Amino acid sequence: MPMQENTFHGLFVEHLRDLYDAEQQITQALPVVIEAVSADELRKALEHHLEVTHGHVERLERLFSDLGEPPTGKSCKGMEGLLEEGDEAIKNHSAGILRDALIIAGAQRIEHYEISGYGTAKAWAEELDLEDAVDLLDETLDEEAEADEKLSAIATGGLLTEGVNETASAK
Amino acid sequence: MPMQENTFHGLFVEHLRDLYDAEQQITQALPVVIEAVSADELRKALEHHLEVTHGHVERLERLFSDLGEPPTGKSCKGMEGLLEEGDEAIKNHSAGILRDALIIAGAQRIEHYEISGYGTAKAWAEELDLEDAVDLLDETLDEEAEADEKLSAIATGGLLTEGVNETASAK
Repeated sequence: MPMQENTFHGLFVEHLRDLYDAEQQITQALPVVIEAVSADELRKALEHHLEVTHGHVERLERLFSDLGEPPTGKSCKGMEGLLEEGDEAIKNHSAGILRDALIIAGAQRIEHYEISGYGTAKAWAEELDLEDAVDLLDETLDEEAEADEKLSAIATGGLLTEGVNETASAK
Repeated sequence: MPMQENTFHGLFVEHLRDLYDAEQQITQALPVVIEAVSADELRKALEHHLEVTHGHVERLERLFSDLGEPPTGKSCKGMEGLLEEGDEAIKNHSAGILRDALIIAGAQRIEHYEISGYGTAKAWAEELDLEDAVDLLDETLDEEAEADEKLSAIATGGLLTEGVNETASAK
């Protein structure tokens, strides 16, 4: 156990490293997921989220730079499990609307993992009076929540558009 | 790939099996986590959540019984990763307020995994016009959201009480 983890500030830095590794894993996994998608709207939303995720990585790098700490050194086991689950869903199903419904379900689990992770990071930064960190973490938190809502909208559709679930339910 | 997964109804049943395995994993892991907690309020909240989780397992069993499907046969890799992460946090830290802060962070990740999982299940049940299933899934979804809010309140404290984070930040 590294000494610095014996302080709340040390826990905070370790938690940010965990998020950093999670975001890196997502940037590597998303292109494969995008390839597996059939519905245009879902593909576009995930392509947009890949760009946004690169921004999250940069924000974390700014945070580490401000803290004078290296960003690497932790592997996020939670995200590994989530991505393994998603990979299994893609491999076990051929391309089409049912696989799209599963991809949305998996992507929303990943969003919720991040909403929870950034929520904790923001609460800890508030307690540590790290105002710049609170602002940066809050920006990412908002974007993760937006991505989750967008995926729900694609799944359930709108007044004029048929959602992925409705199309899938005909199968 | 089992044939039934080629329908949206089949995906729904598989998704419920995943949730069932996740809840079973939680009922096995929570007693160990409760043993590792120092703060009374957190211990009581997790003990209460263990009881509630047994209720979630029973609700899923009612659902499987209504659907005429067996509940077992899927292992939830996402929950395995989350619990492994939590186990690591407990083993790497001695008992005390810092470990409590980490336990809250881990428990909220698990709550968010379930909020997402039950959210998907409810949306799919709505699309499949399975009204009783929607009601049962909604009850559990509410309880998972309540548990998440309760954990946030224990972390951040109130007007008259010091939260776990505030106590931990003195370390």
